[in-house]
Amino acid sequence: MPAQAGAAGGPRTPGTATRGETVPTVPPASKTAEAVDVTALLERGRTLATPVLRAAVDRLAPPMDTVAAYHFGWIDAQGRPAEGDGGKAVRPALAVLSAEVMSAAPETGIPGAVAVELVHNFSLLHDDLMDGDEQRRHRDTVWKVHGPAQAILVGDALFALANEVLLELGTVEAGRATRRLTTATRALIDGQAQDISYEHRDRVSVEECLEMEGNKTGALLACASSIGAVLGGADDRTADTLEKYGYHLGLAFQAVDDLLGIWGDPVSTGKQTWSDLRQRKKSLPVVAALAAGGSASERLGEILAADAKNSDVENFSEEEFAARAALIEEAGGREWTAGEARRQHTIAIEALDAVDMPDRVRAQFTALADFVVVRKR
Amino acid sequence: MPAQAGAAGGPRTPGTATRGETVPTVPPASKTAEAVDVTALLERGRTLATPVLRAAVDRLAPPMDTVAAYHFGWIDAQGRPAEGDGGKAVRPALAVLSAEVMSAAPETGIPGAVAVELVHNFSLLHDDLMDGDEQRRHRDTVWKVHGPAQAILVGDALFALANEVLLELGTVEAGRATRRLTTATRALIDGQAQDISYEHRDRVSVEECLEMEGNKTGALLACASSIGAVLGGADDRTADTLEKYGYHLGLAFQAVDDLLGIWGDPVSTGKQTWSDLRQRKKSLPVVAALAAGGSASERLGEILAADAKNSDVENFSEEEFAARAALIEEAGGREWTAGEARRQHTIAIEALDAVDMPDRVRAQFTALADFVVVRKR
Repeated sequence: MPAQAGAAGGPRTPGTATRGETVPTVPPASKTAEAVDVTALLERGRTLATPVLRAAVDRLAPPMDTVAAYHFGWIDAQGRPAEGDGGKAVRPALAVLSAEVMSAAPETGIPGAVAVELVHNFSLLHDDLMDGDEQRRHRDTVWKVHGPAQAILVGDALFALANEVLLELGTVEAGRATRRLTTATRALIDGQAQDISYEHRDRVSVEECLEMEGNKTGALLACASSIGAVLGGADDRTADTLEKYGYHLGLAFQAVDDLLGIWGDPVSTGKQTWSDLRQRKKSLPVVAALAAGGSASERLGEILAADAKNSDVENFSEEEFAARAALIEEAGGREWTAGEARRQHTIAIEALDAVDMPDRVRAQFTALADFVVVRKR
Repeated sequence: MPAQAGAAGGPRTPGTATRGETVPTVPPASKTAEAVDVTALLERGRTLATPVLRAAVDRLAPPMDTVAAYHFGWIDAQGRPAEGDGGKAVRPALAVLSAEVMSAAPETGIPGAVAVELVHNFSLLHDDLMDGDEQRRHRDTVWKVHGPAQAILVGDALFALANEVLLELGTVEAGRATRRLTTATRALIDGQAQDISYEHRDRVSVEECLEMEGNKTGALLACASSIGAVLGGADDRTADTLEKYGYHLGLAFQAVDDLLGIWGDPVSTGKQTWSDLRQRKKSLPVVAALAAGGSASERLGEILAADAKNSDVENFSEEEFAARAALIEEAGGREWTAGEARRQHTIAIEALDAVDMPDRVRAQFTALADFVVVRKR
């Protein structure tokens, strides 16, 4: 992988880092996929899952119900109803779509969509606290507003609720779905453990970074992409193959996220400019640039080593971050990461070939994969 | 309940609080129960569950495996093997015993025993952090030694592992056991939420305290008392009845714990003298004394209201705590709580009548209930 990174990243004119050109150009995988209305597909997942998700959260005892509602963006810090940014809702869209692989109704996937969203948000609540992140989706994080104890407690409650929503179905399929969700959750936790341990290290290899991102992002997207099918009676081979699609889609998603974390437009992402550089995050473009070798790579290594000992990095000027971003780009980190997004996107799409499913469903999976790689936030 | 507390607590000579007489005298429920070797029963649960528990914890990725091993007392803070105080091991003993209700081998209950222990320890890790408790089982707590992030992360991992250990059995029974464990876990979380919210309140009723203790202690003991039977194929009625035994046993256990928290011998409990009073805990003797009415109750109310605003309570002299304990006793809080332990013990034992089981197993359940109420730590 480092060799690949080096190969991809030839010397480039420094200072060409511009925003708005972040997204790798991906040729639509097929004409049928191009014809899919992705907005409608995402909206369908959201519409089917949200009422059930809200009903599940309403089961929590006060004040956990309120804290969770704040986290999901349904109310503001004062408890007034809010029109929150519920995120892109890729996971619920995938979960209900995956039920259709088995020719089941999309509704079959709803408990799976809800359980996956609950686990995702459990991990956000705990990760934000562990990482000391004060902002999420343009708002103060739960631990910042309601205190660390509520962040821990409500995270725990959402995790338990995820299992409850599935297991109360009382079917053999629900048991299998819960087992897969548990495996994904363990991976999520492993990924966070790796993320924390990497923060204290000078160097992280590209392989380690990909493994961490596979755990943190791939595993749960894998589960989302298969859980509706499992609830619809899919055998292990079908479920595993759909998981493969979701896992690599997750890696593509994360590669794009890592690009947006450096070169994303703050208006679209809702984050600060150069946000991952401010946090000294060892994301893919950074580790790929450091692994590439060459003069830009070496200069970057020296600068980041000095930054690691500097507690004032957050307050650097725009120019200082731009200089670092330019070095990452010059060393090939940006190009390699864009290539990695494309490569993972291709593996995801190709995995679908091994599963029988209606053409319409296949086109929709493909269109969602295209969407994930070309998104701007 | 407050009336009951008042009725139980007539005026008593103040200052009679002595340690070592904490434990309510409970007549052994039956001659057969008296003949049971409880030590051997506890040892059997520990011997069957511990190797499987250790193997499960070994699955955790570093450094979580080490942090968990420290928490369980298997290694010290420097990573050297330790002979930890693994606790009384009542839960594993109950879990393997409950398999025998179905005439299954005790081994059938092992995954249940392990899952319950994992959930119990998940909650300890998170509760210690939320409560800021620095000591557990005579050692520094995990967040104190390894930091808050590891306490959160390893807690999450143990919770996930609990589900994994059950669901990988792949049976219908395992799915049902996981669902019951999830319900118990939600109750555990509700109880901790109540515990936290009560800390900020001046008054807590006896009913609220019992509800909180039912959630924090009753629910998981209920699950422990039935999970082996569920894995052995018990129907819902049998499982519910065994849960009833465990739930009331949990309330009896907690009532004794609350007595030990004030009048327990520090050498036996491993806690400081008057530990619950130092922490200004609204435990059963306190809330019962406050609810009882009368002059001692009123004086206690005034003193505790002043203490609530005093950040120096921890550093009070032995005499000051002794005076508070004497008032609690004078108002009837000690006697009422001892009576409550006996009452809950009786309900637990009587619940067993509704389930068919071998006489030996019934005697062993009864003996464990006797043990819980007469324990000194």
